[in-house]
Amino acid sequence: MDKQHIWNAREEFLTIEQWGHKIEKCLMDPDGSEIIYNVNEDDTREFDAIFIGGGAAGRFGSAYLRAMGGRQLIVDSWPFLGGSCPHNACVPHHLFSECAAELMLARTFSGQFWFPNMDGVITPMKELVDLFREGRVGPHAVMNFQSKEQLDLEYILNTRARIIDPNTVTAAGRKFKTRNIILAMGSKPNIPDIPGVDLHGVFDYETFVEDLDFEPGDTAVVIGGGKTAVEYGTFFNATGRRTIFVVRTELLKLINDGETRGYLIDRMKEQGIEILTGSQVTEIKSDGNGKVSGVTIKSSDGEITLDTDFVFLGTGEVPNAAEAVEKLDVKTGKKGEIIVNSQLQTSVDGVYAIGDLTGAPFEMFKARKGGMYAARHVMGEEINYDPKDWPDFMHTHYEVSWFGLCEEEAREQYENVTIIKMPPENDNGLDVALPASDRTMLYAMKVPRMSGFQKLIIDSNTRKVLGAHHVGYGAKDGFQFLYVLAKQGLTIDQLGEMDELFLNPTHFIQLSRLRAGLKELQDL
Amino acid sequence: MDKQHIWNAREEFLTIEQWGHKIEKCLMDPDGSEIIYNVNEDDTREFDAIFIGGGAAGRFGSAYLRAMGGRQLIVDSWPFLGGSCPHNACVPHHLFSECAAELMLARTFSGQFWFPNMDGVITPMKELVDLFREGRVGPHAVMNFQSKEQLDLEYILNTRARIIDPNTVTAAGRKFKTRNIILAMGSKPNIPDIPGVDLHGVFDYETFVEDLDFEPGDTAVVIGGGKTAVEYGTFFNATGRRTIFVVRTELLKLINDGETRGYLIDRMKEQGIEILTGSQVTEIKSDGNGKVSGVTIKSSDGEITLDTDFVFLGTGEVPNAAEAVEKLDVKTGKKGEIIVNSQLQTSVDGVYAIGDLTGAPFEMFKARKGGMYAARHVMGEEINYDPKDWPDFMHTHYEVSWFGLCEEEAREQYENVTIIKMPPENDNGLDVALPASDRTMLYAMKVPRMSGFQKLIIDSNTRKVLGAHHVGYGAKDGFQFLYVLAKQGLTIDQLGEMDELFLNPTHFIQLSRLRAGLKELQDL
Repeated sequence: MDKQHIWNAREEFLTIEQWGHKIEKCLMDPDGSEIIYNVNEDDTREFDAIFIGGGAAGRFGSAYLRAMGGRQLIVDSWPFLGGSCPHNACVPHHLFSECAAELMLARTFSGQFWFPNMDGVITPMKELVDLFREGRVGPHAVMNFQSKEQLDLEYILNTRARIIDPNTVTAAGRKFKTRNIILAMGSKPNIPDIPGVDLHGVFDYETFVEDLDFEPGDTAVVIGGGKTAVEYGTFFNATGRRTIFVVRTELLKLINDGETRGYLIDRMKEQGIEILTGSQVTEIKSDGNGKVSGVTIKSSDGEITLDTDFVFLGTGEVPNAAEAVEKLDVKTGKKGEIIVNSQLQTSVDGVYAIGDLTGAPFEMFKARKGGMYAARHVMGEEINYDPKDWPDFMHTHYEVSWFGLCEEEAREQYENVTIIKMPPENDNGLDVALPASDRTMLYAMKVPRMSGFQKLIIDSNTRKVLGAHHVGYGAKDGFQFLYVLAKQGLTIDQLGEMDELFLNPTHFIQLSRLRAGLKELQDL
Repeated sequence: MDKQHIWNAREEFLTIEQWGHKIEKCLMDPDGSEIIYNVNEDDTREFDAIFIGGGAAGRFGSAYLRAMGGRQLIVDSWPFLGGSCPHNACVPHHLFSECAAELMLARTFSGQFWFPNMDGVITPMKELVDLFREGRVGPHAVMNFQSKEQLDLEYILNTRARIIDPNTVTAAGRKFKTRNIILAMGSKPNIPDIPGVDLHGVFDYETFVEDLDFEPGDTAVVIGGGKTAVEYGTFFNATGRRTIFVVRTELLKLINDGETRGYLIDRMKEQGIEILTGSQVTEIKSDGNGKVSGVTIKSSDGEITLDTDFVFLGTGEVPNAAEAVEKLDVKTGKKGEIIVNSQLQTSVDGVYAIGDLTGAPFEMFKARKGGMYAARHVMGEEINYDPKDWPDFMHTHYEVSWFGLCEEEAREQYENVTIIKMPPENDNGLDVALPASDRTMLYAMKVPRMSGFQKLIIDSNTRKVLGAHHVGYGAKDGFQFLYVLAKQGLTIDQLGEMDELFLNPTHFIQLSRLRAGLKELQDL
């Protein structure tokens, strides 16, 4: 590492394309590649903060601090900014989830219109992983370019930082003094303690992208039932492989609204997904040559064995806290997360921690906003950041968005609750052509139960929105803003006054308008 | 008509499925079918309003009036509520636009992964029209069901209303007295005065759905350059047909931001679309047997002739005002629209007009909200409805959403303007992997210039959002709510405080956060 050549990025302008080539070269040959050194040597000021890690948290924190007039430095061991997210964590599943949605459509309309005959067809996974590995450099390049040329950030990439003390960091053979250190090293997949977990053929979200070197057979076993497990598992299923979820408790516990969760699970089952709840994999079996040949599953019904060459671990994330604990002795919590107060300060003076490193929720908004708030505090602003409530999202074959209370919670906490949903309560159940919008029109015309489900929950007395739940496509962006309006106290009457963009994926505005004239609200 | 049997819907409960069968039967055999009569004979009150037409405007107006405790009646000549929109106007293009997006994807990845080889393949249009014709009854059934069982509306369907005077309407052989009449007869395609426009093979949005009885050949000529023309024309192109737009002035004038319009037109051209601006079709030629065989086009360069059996008229809409003018002598404007004041009142006492009947914008929100406001006024509320500004949307192969000022307007009206956009200004232009989100991930990995374009326009002094523009997928719902926030005076700082749902199609929140720390805003 120490022998790496130092490339002074400061003195050169690279286009986004050139950044792409640079990053690619570094990734292809980690040992021979150079340190990307973008430090303003003419600036003699001490750093206000050095960010250890240039992922979402570190990069956004740096941008904010720099914008406020402070001086920052990012050190990251990867040759690009943006962290694991666009490299092997949260971005790739967007590609796979897009493919899952497309494949469900192609299978549903197999052999019709222009769709190929998909009967019994298993589609490649490795080709898509390879596509991602080739394409991921694109976003990396944008972020290096943007951070240098547009945001004026200082950074050292493709080398490790060494934390000496809360005011001293070394990197690229240089020593840097700083008023503060902001830890932003992210998280990594949690590996459960199961015999055989090291066998070839066992993947987590990271190794699936980095290491997949064969086309898996016809069966995929997914361990876990949360976001990551379901996002990858629905993709495996969509490729035509038998897919079995092995879940300790229940699938999709995070979807709090029972009816919404039921809709999702029914659709997953309809696509052929098998779900073993109250179950656990007790052993991953070897073929004798270091490769997975099957799993043993223990459930209340006894023991099952399944043949497979492909096991996916969707068992959550753990913070990358080890180095900070070792070097700085920062305090951690029960799940290995670095403990911070609402000012993002750790137990050590002058040391902050942000993003996944501080534990759940392992979400992008928390990383980026944590960076922004830490930067403000470093720059002398009073801040308070401790997210307790947020809009949420995940993929199945569908896009699922939600915020606020589920129906069960609302009925517990409020005397009168009005539910506005689509499809409506009716004798034909979900086999109804509405809701429908972009990307569910073909379903609406032919297999209406597949065209989505949505629900708005309202306190009948104050007429305020308490929660919203959506399964379909194209509602994610809206939920960000609808959540803000709901926090302001959005009422059904205000919704009814809005200008809908026909044919909007959430039908909330128009459905609200159909009821808003009532003094005493009623379900719809 | 008068001999039709009257079916008393009041006394029967139909499921949504049963409504579907009922409507289908009526549509199959208009002469032999029965009048759907859903009037509460036990209610002896005079009607507060009779809505002539049960489309978006009439149905939503009725729902609001009923919810306020008023008595309403809808009379519609179709056997379903919802009007032309879900039958042959604004809904079908959503199906065709979904197919256009899917076909562009399939053609871009032709022969790769699971996508079929699309080289030179012309995909059927008629099969999709047939699919729509079979499936459209589904949403109709939901609306009849919802209106009767959930909204408690009174309606008479599948027969014409006769307006006797502003307080008297007859239908189904009965005379109804009413305090007010609310005209809601909608609009129909505008047919330009071109020789040969009546030939078989010339379609508008309505007849394309109702009358397409052959599989068009390999060339489509589209007359017009607005929403309808482009929404249908991009679909024709996506099916693999040579598609030529003949436009009097410019294509997509309604997209006010020049850069956004440029992105859209470049992508259309890239898909092979030909655009003849400053041109007009002077003749549609016959094959001698009443069928289209070609067109003659006059442009500044002279005259061209093209062979084709398929011409599409995308030349706007005209209000269905004739009957109201004849019976009530309501005043109309230059484009045939019924003139109303901000209380939706026509020139005749007790007669309101709403929706497309009152002219542009021919948009869903205006129809539904017009109905709501007219209902409020009828019920004694003071109202004022005269939309001057709204979020807007259309399809190309993409979804296009926008509101507020374009860059050109902002620069004219404001001293300092900040532009935040993706892709950023850079030497590689649009050939950059960001923006990306659901449905553009495959493009981002392989053909990055196709992954979309977006722009946020901010007044640097007040830091407020002036306008927003988006080409991609999944931003439509968000634009409804973002528009409301922008009207409240949304600043870049408030955007930066929001919780984005990764990976959101508009990257506005996160991009704003990267700049919000600056006292003096800069472009990004």
